[in-house]
Amino acid sequence: MKLVAFLVCFMLAFAAVGATIQPREPGWSGSLLVVPMDGSHWTGVKAVAQEMGRRGHKVMVVIPEVSVLLGPGKYYTTRTFPVPYGKQQLDELQARNAEVMESKQLPLLEKISTRISNMRKFVDLQRATAESLLLNQELVDFLKKQNFDAVLTSPAVPTGAILAYNLSLPAVYMLRGLPCGLDSTATACPSPPSYIPRFFTNNSDRMSFRQRVLNVLVSTVEPLLCRLIYWSMEGVASRFLQRDVSVAEILRSGALWLLRYDFSLEFPKPLMPNMVLIGGINCAIKNPLTKRDVSLTEILSTGAVWLMWYDFNLEFPKPLMPNMQLIGGINCGIRNPLKKEVEEFVEGSGEHGIVVFSLGSLVSSMPKEKAAVFFKAFSMIPQRVLWRYTGEIPDNVPENVKLMKWLPQNDLLGHPKAKAFITHGGTHGIYEGICHGVPMVMIPLFGDQADNVHRMATRGVGVVLSIHDITAETLHDALNSVINDGSYEQRMEKLSAIHNDRPMQPLDLAVYWTEFVMRHKGADHLRPAAHDLNWFQYHSLDVIGFLLFIVLIVTLVTFKCCALCWRRCCRKLQKRKKD
Amino acid sequence: MKLVAFLVCFMLAFAAVGATIQPREPGWSGSLLVVPMDGSHWTGVKAVAQEMGRRGHKVMVVIPEVSVLLGPGKYYTTRTFPVPYGKQQLDELQARNAEVMESKQLPLLEKISTRISNMRKFVDLQRATAESLLLNQELVDFLKKQNFDAVLTSPAVPTGAILAYNLSLPAVYMLRGLPCGLDSTATACPSPPSYIPRFFTNNSDRMSFRQRVLNVLVSTVEPLLCRLIYWSMEGVASRFLQRDVSVAEILRSGALWLLRYDFSLEFPKPLMPNMVLIGGINCAIKNPLTKRDVSLTEILSTGAVWLMWYDFNLEFPKPLMPNMQLIGGINCGIRNPLKKEVEEFVEGSGEHGIVVFSLGSLVSSMPKEKAAVFFKAFSMIPQRVLWRYTGEIPDNVPENVKLMKWLPQNDLLGHPKAKAFITHGGTHGIYEGICHGVPMVMIPLFGDQADNVHRMATRGVGVVLSIHDITAETLHDALNSVINDGSYEQRMEKLSAIHNDRPMQPLDLAVYWTEFVMRHKGADHLRPAAHDLNWFQYHSLDVIGFLLFIVLIVTLVTFKCCALCWRRCCRKLQKRKKD
Repeated sequence: MKLVAFLVCFMLAFAAVGATIQPREPGWSGSLLVVPMDGSHWTGVKAVAQEMGRRGHKVMVVIPEVSVLLGPGKYYTTRTFPVPYGKQQLDELQARNAEVMESKQLPLLEKISTRISNMRKFVDLQRATAESLLLNQELVDFLKKQNFDAVLTSPAVPTGAILAYNLSLPAVYMLRGLPCGLDSTATACPSPPSYIPRFFTNNSDRMSFRQRVLNVLVSTVEPLLCRLIYWSMEGVASRFLQRDVSVAEILRSGALWLLRYDFSLEFPKPLMPNMVLIGGINCAIKNPLTKRDVSLTEILSTGAVWLMWYDFNLEFPKPLMPNMQLIGGINCGIRNPLKKEVEEFVEGSGEHGIVVFSLGSLVSSMPKEKAAVFFKAFSMIPQRVLWRYTGEIPDNVPENVKLMKWLPQNDLLGHPKAKAFITHGGTHGIYEGICHGVPMVMIPLFGDQADNVHRMATRGVGVVLSIHDITAETLHDALNSVINDGSYEQRMEKLSAIHNDRPMQPLDLAVYWTEFVMRHKGADHLRPAAHDLNWFQYHSLDVIGFLLFIVLIVTLVTFKCCALCWRRCCRKLQKRKKD
Repeated sequence: MKLVAFLVCFMLAFAAVGATIQPREPGWSGSLLVVPMDGSHWTGVKAVAQEMGRRGHKVMVVIPEVSVLLGPGKYYTTRTFPVPYGKQQLDELQARNAEVMESKQLPLLEKISTRISNMRKFVDLQRATAESLLLNQELVDFLKKQNFDAVLTSPAVPTGAILAYNLSLPAVYMLRGLPCGLDSTATACPSPPSYIPRFFTNNSDRMSFRQRVLNVLVSTVEPLLCRLIYWSMEGVASRFLQRDVSVAEILRSGALWLLRYDFSLEFPKPLMPNMVLIGGINCAIKNPLTKRDVSLTEILSTGAVWLMWYDFNLEFPKPLMPNMQLIGGINCGIRNPLKKEVEEFVEGSGEHGIVVFSLGSLVSSMPKEKAAVFFKAFSMIPQRVLWRYTGEIPDNVPENVKLMKWLPQNDLLGHPKAKAFITHGGTHGIYEGICHGVPMVMIPLFGDQADNVHRMATRGVGVVLSIHDITAETLHDALNSVINDGSYEQRMEKLSAIHNDRPMQPLDLAVYWTEFVMRHKGADHLRPAAHDLNWFQYHSLDVIGFLLFIVLIVTLVTFKCCALCWRRCCRKLQKRKKD
């Protein structure tokens, strides 16, 4: 052992000396413009922005003066711009999101109209934000002068994409997917409706004939839906770029797509070369950043040696890879320590363990009568519950429940005592659950959540409940199943093992490819030629038409010839007969 | 600096101690069966077999008693089986490959018949080898008893795939592509003929209408071609498995496809989740293995720390990545030192540099009159030439030419003096050229070589010559262009930078995913549901038919109703008129 230590010391001392001779090449650090989207999308984008800054790039994040989550960070600068709305309006919008939890089932028409009105408010807000940025001539001119190498943005609201298009900068998109299959269209990625379920259909990749009919119908309507959804953004884009332009056209110009995809959650489907899969990026976000800063920064700055995470007590030992040594899935094993008070509460749960409960960042509070259902169910289980709860605190909170305004969700799920996770099914939460192998009770509220939870239910690692029909009994039964049944845990362990078994951490992958785009000024060599074809050519319809035409001509000519021959023969025969 | 060294020492000593507490999990090392294919395919497969063995897996390679390149290695065991042919027959077959270089242009029919006869001899040999393995009951029983975790094989000759299928083992395929698009079929990977050029058509991804017609026609004929090509192997498989079976069906069962793809060479196209791109794997093969063995083995065996390549003089400094530190492209900069005699010859070339010339391992010698053309051209250039030449050595070899029976191709191309590379355009050579950024003069002989060189020519990094029409003048002009024009070098540098800019080395990627398949007993979560659909369902033709039927019915009913109404109205009108 001593020999080994000595050898290592010797070699690294040598490496450190080497580092002064061969410093990090000064020319390669670049500058990145980040145009984020508010809400949970910010989590992943911020992580990459931070990490890029930490690695020596100049990173500038452009954010509205008022927002829910957007804000400054240690490793990037921010540039704010004024918007025509206030914090209060944002809060109101968030409060509206809680309406989906109302017990009373509204009549269908009213429900739809409420949804549409909420959606419109959301779209109006996005449009106002986009206009405030893009039509702020002074800001755009300033950004133009910065000579950025690339733009990192969420294309779900395509403000950043439009800006990148206008500044002729290569764009790196970070997303889970776009509504109405716009991501497939804009990447020219084949997406046969025969086995790729469409959003919101609740189909899996194995469909009955009836499900496939629905899937094909939805896929037919998708282009129309896209136009409706991006109608107002296309207006902003057209005004900004001073010509008619579609969002699809703008997104097509993106250099790279960082997709929050992982096939432990998604059904297998075709990919394109410019897609990089970074599903699960949130799982590793906080820890590496804190850890890296503590003691290794100085060594890192010499730029010649990188030390791997080796001093952590791995809960799930992983295969060792030469250049990945102890990295695969290890971030999952690391947790930030919990606050003393929380740690005590968690540890106090004994053998029964804890249940982590959060409905995400977009829902501010829960209606009282709904909350009562949860309290009742929780009073019936032996586990302790940690609940992200922002509303008014009622009197009769059961003893085993701890309400917290903010939940260290990833750290709690990574705690060995975590037995179940009650979640709304947002992608970030789902991935944290998979990463730490905690079975789930899922209560989807809106957006892609219904799809996410359906995928998880298909894999048998969680139970789905409806927020409308939920009762203390159904919730209790669901919790009881996922915690005590054993089969949920077993399947989740398998899924977790597959998900965590990756040659490279998603955050590193995201940063690597963002840097790649900056270094090579785009990624043209990954762009399929399909973009230069119209749909007629793409499906070879012109060629097929041409070939059919040839076949037709040949058939006709052959037929005519035969007919001619036949007639002649007949005539001859008739002549002979006559003769 | 001292502080840094001290810190590093301290931390690593700690890590080394940590390693004794947390040793490499003993259970994870597995056993791998390798069924290789003879020829250049062996290069990549051997590298993975070696590396897997070096990392502690039990690796067994099954090879025929007689072969061109297959043989034992340091880190794996071999198991040979008898075959009904001798070394002489193999040599004859190789000699036949040289026939493509004959100067005299044969009449088309004779040319085709020669090709077919050569092809048949090759196919017969492959069939004989496959039969010798699969119908060797004793060997198959022995292999069955070994309880392998996975099979690594080249599916171009599907012996290993058939064996894996029979033993119900997950198969890892390593290939560049299969003739007649069988790889697309067997992975259910979409491959629209509108922008994905078919093999042997010489089309690029941007095609004229005429080219697209050809492309569509070839893609239509592909399934038929496949049946023809794999006819005899399907016979062997059916006999072995005792039921009728197609090669496509067997290949479909593959868990993972390691593709020698890199988009610096290939045109962008859709991929499937179970495809891993390892193009350029040969570039890094020899060096890491030698280097790793020298001094780090002992430290590695403690399993807690991995030290990155830090003491090499990088020719192309690369961005530093936390968990890839100094790995990206660095293998490309490392070369094994040349033998003294070769090094002297190379160094003696002065400012003019050297030209590396090899036509691959399958062509044994060159016809005399053809060789004369090359000698004449070489006598006209100031560069020195290193030529892999196995025939009879003529008298008048120019002074600047060195003939060698075996060429350390990768080491020579990595030498700073390498100015040009004359190659037949095999994938391995092409990738070594790209990796080291050496412009090429390409003389395709057979197989996928014409396609490879066409891709390179499209990118403007090399000149294509035909072996039939080649003259000393055309060769001289070509060499002159790629060496002195500057634009070839420039474009090649860009291409090389893109190719070498990878977050993970292809060999590590190949090993990682092979291990993944072994650990998780396959990769079912990456398998698209498309495999469970027939082509009718896959293209949703049943759904479209059903929907059209509905539309037809609705139209008919509407029409009938309208007609009925119309008639009634008419009648009334007529009645009124009558009245």
